[in-house]
Amino acid sequence: MALKLYGIPMSTCTTRAMICLHEKEVEFELVPVDLYAGEHKQPSYLSKNPFGQVPLLEDDDLTLFESRAITRYVSEKYEKTGIDLLRRDSIKEAALVNQWVEIESQHYNPVILPIIYEIFVSPITGQSPDKTVIDANVEKLGKVLDIYEDRLSNNKYLAGDFYSLADLHHLSYTYYMMKTEWASLINTRPHVKAWWEDISSRPAFIKVAEGMTFN
Amino acid sequence: MALKLYGIPMSTCTTRAMICLHEKEVEFELVPVDLYAGEHKQPSYLSKNPFGQVPLLEDDDLTLFESRAITRYVSEKYEKTGIDLLRRDSIKEAALVNQWVEIESQHYNPVILPIIYEIFVSPITGQSPDKTVIDANVEKLGKVLDIYEDRLSNNKYLAGDFYSLADLHHLSYTYYMMKTEWASLINTRPHVKAWWEDISSRPAFIKVAEGMTFN
Repeated sequence: MALKLYGIPMSTCTTRAMICLHEKEVEFELVPVDLYAGEHKQPSYLSKNPFGQVPLLEDDDLTLFESRAITRYVSEKYEKTGIDLLRRDSIKEAALVNQWVEIESQHYNPVILPIIYEIFVSPITGQSPDKTVIDANVEKLGKVLDIYEDRLSNNKYLAGDFYSLADLHHLSYTYYMMKTEWASLINTRPHVKAWWEDISSRPAFIKVAEGMTFN
Repeated sequence: MALKLYGIPMSTCTTRAMICLHEKEVEFELVPVDLYAGEHKQPSYLSKNPFGQVPLLEDDDLTLFESRAITRYVSEKYEKTGIDLLRRDSIKEAALVNQWVEIESQHYNPVILPIIYEIFVSPITGQSPDKTVIDANVEKLGKVLDIYEDRLSNNKYLAGDFYSLADLHHLSYTYYMMKTEWASLINTRPHVKAWWEDISSRPAFIKVAEGMTFN
């Protein structure tokens, strides 16, 4: 039975899982969840994920949520197909992949998320983007990207000279930011820019990006 | 050469790594970092961790930061000693460990952190705790703990009927919260309370908790 991924193609967390599934050449069925109708807050969905969020993966009798846990599961289960995203053959490389996975989770995501939310989601809910929130987080993101620029001036990718789950986790949010004036945060840092152009041109991501539109 | 862990025993992220090292029965040297003197913002420290935070692990030629990446590394490298924290012999159990590791990281930590910061850290910096921040996050934490209560009424630990890295990651922040009036968030939920009493009575944690004082 093919894996079922519950979510929608415009959701950054759903696409994080989708990109990984494509990189690992895993067949899956995308089961749409009508977020506008609040389907993710209905008892039948909450019984699968009590946090009421997408994505959610079903693989036979395993139900799994949290996008970064799904990508790790897929990367481990399908270790032999597609690109090696975890580098478990080398404990040192694996450690650095995990470190940069954590950096995305603890330093990058918390500051890019509010920027994307204000620019893309607030208008959907009938509110104007809060410029104070955007400015504060743009400043913080700039500092994080200064560290990335330094790192990427010595390594082609975040964890080393190999593409990994750490790079992959950055794609969804950054893709939306690149459609805004804040693309300058990436474009003014030459090594970050080269990294972005590299990781965003991978076929697995291009396939997913086609569905990433807010409408 | 023994592992070197840079940090201090009152830091929640340092103790997260320390508890794991004790659980895995790994010898290590704790190298103090004088946060009050800003040692973590000096060039020599920033060259090891550009984010200027503790803890940081040195293991021969590997330098690793981010507490959750350190615990994963230690749990993988010392798979055969101490308790099995990752359950990698079962891909399904490992997936659920990783899911609950993510839940701590994405849902629990972001709301308990500001509570602990306001109560314990603000006074050190000469400021009064911001009651609005505390109240907002206490409400959110209550909702997260409702989900934990439900989960723990069917499973002894978060990922299943086995102690794992997911439980361990909750110890440091919760320990400080249990010293405040907000201990009621745990104590009023019987299954969460039983879980807390269980995980906080493990010898590896008791050893670390002795040093966890704000002074």
